[in-house]
Amino acid sequence: MTTQPPHPTASTSDNVSQLSLSDPDTPFAVLDTTKAKRNIARLADHVDKLGVSLRPHLKTTKSLEVASLIHGDEPGPITVSTLAEAEAFADGGYTDILYAVGIDPHKLPRVIALLRRGITLTVLLDSTEQARAVRDAAASAHTPIPTLIEVDCDGHRGGVTLQEPALVEIGRILTEASSLRGVLVHAGESYFATTSAAQRKAAGHERDVAVAAAQQLRDAGLSADVVSVGSTPTAHAATDLTGVTEVRAGNYVFFDLVMAGLGVCGVDDLALSVVVTVIGHRAEHGWILTDGGWMAMSRDRGTANQSTDQGYGLVTDLTGNLIPNLLMSDASQEHGILSTRDGSPLPDLPVGTRLRILPNHACATAAQHRGYHVVASGQSTPSTPAIQTFWERVTGW
Amino acid sequence: MTTQPPHPTASTSDNVSQLSLSDPDTPFAVLDTTKAKRNIARLADHVDKLGVSLRPHLKTTKSLEVASLIHGDEPGPITVSTLAEAEAFADGGYTDILYAVGIDPHKLPRVIALLRRGITLTVLLDSTEQARAVRDAAASAHTPIPTLIEVDCDGHRGGVTLQEPALVEIGRILTEASSLRGVLVHAGESYFATTSAAQRKAAGHERDVAVAAAQQLRDAGLSADVVSVGSTPTAHAATDLTGVTEVRAGNYVFFDLVMAGLGVCGVDDLALSVVVTVIGHRAEHGWILTDGGWMAMSRDRGTANQSTDQGYGLVTDLTGNLIPNLLMSDASQEHGILSTRDGSPLPDLPVGTRLRILPNHACATAAQHRGYHVVASGQSTPSTPAIQTFWERVTGW
Repeated sequence: MTTQPPHPTASTSDNVSQLSLSDPDTPFAVLDTTKAKRNIARLADHVDKLGVSLRPHLKTTKSLEVASLIHGDEPGPITVSTLAEAEAFADGGYTDILYAVGIDPHKLPRVIALLRRGITLTVLLDSTEQARAVRDAAASAHTPIPTLIEVDCDGHRGGVTLQEPALVEIGRILTEASSLRGVLVHAGESYFATTSAAQRKAAGHERDVAVAAAQQLRDAGLSADVVSVGSTPTAHAATDLTGVTEVRAGNYVFFDLVMAGLGVCGVDDLALSVVVTVIGHRAEHGWILTDGGWMAMSRDRGTANQSTDQGYGLVTDLTGNLIPNLLMSDASQEHGILSTRDGSPLPDLPVGTRLRILPNHACATAAQHRGYHVVASGQSTPSTPAIQTFWERVTGW
Repeated sequence: MTTQPPHPTASTSDNVSQLSLSDPDTPFAVLDTTKAKRNIARLADHVDKLGVSLRPHLKTTKSLEVASLIHGDEPGPITVSTLAEAEAFADGGYTDILYAVGIDPHKLPRVIALLRRGITLTVLLDSTEQARAVRDAAASAHTPIPTLIEVDCDGHRGGVTLQEPALVEIGRILTEASSLRGVLVHAGESYFATTSAAQRKAAGHERDVAVAAAQQLRDAGLSADVVSVGSTPTAHAATDLTGVTEVRAGNYVFFDLVMAGLGVCGVDDLALSVVVTVIGHRAEHGWILTDGGWMAMSRDRGTANQSTDQGYGLVTDLTGNLIPNLLMSDASQEHGILSTRDGSPLPDLPVGTRLRILPNHACATAAQHRGYHVVASGQSTPSTPAIQTFWERVTGW
């Protein structure tokens, strides 16, 4: 899916490789592969040392090419958030896919269609109703439907708790159709864990609950080969994953200001940004207006509840150097407002100046774009980074 | 752009006209044309009585078919928020298009390309820098670039004020290239005007500022044929538009909970909703989990600052009847959480139940979808509305 961007050549040539970040009409999303590769290597090293495998969650990047940065030419295990992603990555050669949203029984025909193509598509559930639907569909299709039971460790979303008899009950129903594969836990609480110690604690708890859930199944005579845990904070914070078989994380490839606010990364690690253009000034308000509003950034204000509220994002020049004290403080559909954090004088950024905005939440900002203009920072540092290619995102459900 | 939806036939047939809201995999956006047509007729009647023309803003709906509900088979004047929209609607036969975001000089080649196709594409600006860029581009291209000057009436976004000499200065620069057409005002304040009286006042002020700005230009010997005002609240509240030539409004076709919260419409007027499926329950938290998260609804929490916070949206059954007391209270990427407003017991909605969520902000929610599954409420009221067709949205910039 390396294709031409929508308007690559407003001013120069038809050859994408000739373009720089000065060329496409704004706003557009930029992926810095130097930073993405560094983020990918960091977690790969960490998980490797812990002796478990990594099943990256592609819900953030939704791109075959970004997945290749992780897995190279050998498609490995992945996690997805929609069946549209599962189908697209299956088309791209991925055969071991976890669909990590509680299964809607109505979607089982598409699950079975993927299984019949030879894809090991694993589904997730947390109720006996879903388990019966999976069992019946597996029996009708004469094929097991690999399934994980979602177990809750901190009350942030779905899952059965260790205290509920439903865990084993679901396990028994799935076993009737040879579909039980194991358990999955996601430490939603970790996105609010603001210290390394709290993140380590969340990682330890996530592991403990996952291992205990698997043991409950085994104690009942059921199998639990897969013990899957993960979130971007806990994946990085984990120090001991004994009993766990795989770790999931998605945001870490791009990172964002929420993760920087938690200390999981630095602002310099953010691999996704949005290029915008200054279209006006309101000196009396202390505003610079840009053509990047919430349509380009999303409405996500994930840092609003952190100790430092970053507005809709921090601002860098086109090369990626932070402009001190400036942030995107407000947004309408196609307008962004930049202002200084303390009301100090605005930098001189005339109409036509291009800037990059670092997002609060990479998953949400990336979702506003059809794909990524790809650059690699630190390469012979031209004043304006060259665009190497354009990578499309998978869309829809 | 009437095309097949992404997965129309998970369970039944290949014929979209055979499908109902029970069929496509969730989440997906639904447009109720019965309500949209009623909303369209309401504003058309009102503006007609005021003796001005309506230039609908298509940034909300971004659909040729929805535009046809407004203009019928005779493409009329429209407003757009991106050049991608301008190009798509030009392809669809629209020849009188206002691009109502301050012009980035870098985008002028695409503006000129549209003008050369015979499209009257009008641009907007509020600075002498932009005016000189437009003047120079018009001179180079040997074609006037129709331009409105953005005038600010309430300090909510861009625009020059009536007090600034820039207004006439910009007018003079544009006149050098025969490009000055008039003035545009947008009452951003009206989205915070919570009473009819406050909305009428905002509408009167928007008109007064627009008319005064046009008069300043005329007093300086310049022309101002176009006097354009509008926002959904002021368009409905206006009682006297003497001196105004056209009114803009966009959200009104769909309406949303923010507009209902302002009293501009009722909840029963909302024409856009998102169909989701129940995928789990957390009785101990008072939660019903669905497969519709912020990816389907957007992160917009526009009612959070209104007197009644509607969370991420109100909930109806598949036919569109409100489920009392229930709202979408939280969201992650592909999960929605429903709970009762007062903690009262949850209604019985088993796994697999389909619901519709009414959005805070239709512009933002619609932007999360490739298009609309179209239904018409009130037609022989089947228990589950039939899907008549699928309408694609214009995407990107």
